[in-house]
Amino acid sequence: MTNLQNDLFLRACKRQPVERTPIWIMRQAGRYLPEYMAVRQKADFLTMCKTPELATEVTLQPIDLIGVDAAIIFSDILVIPEAMGMHLEMHEGKGPVFPHPIRNEADAKKIKKIDPTGELKYVMDAVALTKKELNRRVPLIGFSGSPWTLLAYMVEGQGSKNFSKAKHLIYNNPRLAHSLLDKIADAAAAYLSAKMDAGVNAVQIFDTWGGLLSQDDFEEFSLNYIRKIISLVKREDVPVIVFAKGVHFYLDKLAESGADVLGLDWTMNIGDVREKVGDKVALQGNMDPTILYADHEKIRREARKILKSFGHGSGHIFNLGHGILPDVRPENLKALVDFVKEESVRYHKKV
Amino acid sequence: MTNLQNDLFLRACKRQPVERTPIWIMRQAGRYLPEYMAVRQKADFLTMCKTPELATEVTLQPIDLIGVDAAIIFSDILVIPEAMGMHLEMHEGKGPVFPHPIRNEADAKKIKKIDPTGELKYVMDAVALTKKELNRRVPLIGFSGSPWTLLAYMVEGQGSKNFSKAKHLIYNNPRLAHSLLDKIADAAAAYLSAKMDAGVNAVQIFDTWGGLLSQDDFEEFSLNYIRKIISLVKREDVPVIVFAKGVHFYLDKLAESGADVLGLDWTMNIGDVREKVGDKVALQGNMDPTILYADHEKIRREARKILKSFGHGSGHIFNLGHGILPDVRPENLKALVDFVKEESVRYHKKV
Repeated sequence: MTNLQNDLFLRACKRQPVERTPIWIMRQAGRYLPEYMAVRQKADFLTMCKTPELATEVTLQPIDLIGVDAAIIFSDILVIPEAMGMHLEMHEGKGPVFPHPIRNEADAKKIKKIDPTGELKYVMDAVALTKKELNRRVPLIGFSGSPWTLLAYMVEGQGSKNFSKAKHLIYNNPRLAHSLLDKIADAAAAYLSAKMDAGVNAVQIFDTWGGLLSQDDFEEFSLNYIRKIISLVKREDVPVIVFAKGVHFYLDKLAESGADVLGLDWTMNIGDVREKVGDKVALQGNMDPTILYADHEKIRREARKILKSFGHGSGHIFNLGHGILPDVRPENLKALVDFVKEESVRYHKKV
Repeated sequence: MTNLQNDLFLRACKRQPVERTPIWIMRQAGRYLPEYMAVRQKADFLTMCKTPELATEVTLQPIDLIGVDAAIIFSDILVIPEAMGMHLEMHEGKGPVFPHPIRNEADAKKIKKIDPTGELKYVMDAVALTKKELNRRVPLIGFSGSPWTLLAYMVEGQGSKNFSKAKHLIYNNPRLAHSLLDKIADAAAAYLSAKMDAGVNAVQIFDTWGGLLSQDDFEEFSLNYIRKIISLVKREDVPVIVFAKGVHFYLDKLAESGADVLGLDWTMNIGDVREKVGDKVALQGNMDPTILYADHEKIRREARKILKSFGHGSGHIFNLGHGILPDVRPENLKALVDFVKEESVRYHKKV
């Protein structure tokens, strides 16, 4: 199927037979790694995103150091709004900030179509360089925020507990919200397609803030635009993963969105979800990221529980239920990865 | 059943017939009310909690100004840990802080049993005074945090996105965590019982952070202690409401916890939940609090959807799916309350 030395991840995405369960970790190229922090000391976060050599360096770190089965290109979901014309700043301790958020029609008019090989060329260059450096060892994943999650930041201007201003917009000016979501969906699709052209083997759409919406609002303001992206980017050989955190209520609809894989947060029971939708999609997840604070024995016990809950057969990609936390010890992640590789073999033996 | 002029709320808790759906609002005595802010300008938050006259004054405000069907005594869930010996500070903008959080056995040893009519006498005085001022108009609700939610604050020392330190504790020293949870459950039960003695007509247990736990962890570290509290405080004529935010996965177990009412956050479909557990418990909720940012027409449309979703018959207490936000306009809440009172009549007509 591919010329990769290790294509377990891609086969699991397509629910094809595998010898063991593949594993990668959201935010695996991140602050928990001292090697990442060493690079981060030389350059700020956005410079790292925009310098292909640095992005490639940190993207490769967890492959070499931890032994995960897929790489995910180091970047940020907010590079799309930035490319759409919004000035983006990274504030130490506070996170990303758009000093001029979108609040009305006039602000929205300034939002432009993106050229993914123009202002976002640095991402494509990072993908190409990473592919070269990976040298066919493991697949490379590209990603984008969902339109709702991106809109939430673009309207709020920064992270938020309730994203009140974004909710204000969708309830008081739904027409403007929809027109923005549609533009963002087009941009995200163009961006993901360009990444596929540049060589990524799979893509993940992060709907980090989908779980802040009621069921009807999720369908209207998030799911519809996730569907649109998938319909625009879908290719036979590049699986699409959708990870909608906190969206416990519409797994069936997400499973029919065109996605190949559903990412699950740690509040789901992966076995129950498999029973419900496992004939339609593969499942990715879903260990509580804070379990990595525990000792190795506890980590292994919890990992075993998840493997067992999913059960026999392909269609499971092991991951955490959200990004790895910065204060986790790398050896704890290594213990998890080693254990999953070893323990999962039994779930893939022919019976 | 009671000598109250309006006991709709209590009857709905017990799934007895009502003429219309009762409504009250989490955090209804709060910052969205200018009249509350006027009191708040004279005294800081903890002083308000500890001064029965002030607590009574703001508890009554939404009864007089908004017309809700139940009062909830103005207080804070963290008065229990404070009474257990933890120094509590309120930091403007940052919220409550325990400068000396619990991190180990030595810290835990300093935690003492509470005497709810001793150091928490001010709450009982506020309850008694409020009862007098309410003059039988509507029922009065008392509340407590769940042991897990209280432990999370006591260990973390403050609000947190992941409550990493609390997770650290439960995974690395579960014995200590359980011994603390058990003590907190005893304290919460003693506190709620004393409130009942002082005159509250119902109690609500808030498990604000239950949704941060995986399913197994929720059962082990939260649900078990909620069950314990309920078994200790249960009285025939004082309904118990459990509101576990984000706990979408164990509604069936919560419905069998001994609670009379389940509070639902806004990501649930109240009609689906009724179908699942509505023969065991009443349901409270569950409009997205941010809907109150919308115009009155939209607010009414959303309220109608929830009333319709629950459907005909008793056992529904209208509420938001979380606390009212401080930047909501009071007239928007008033519009919601008026509409629910009027529109819900049709769902309680004898057919």
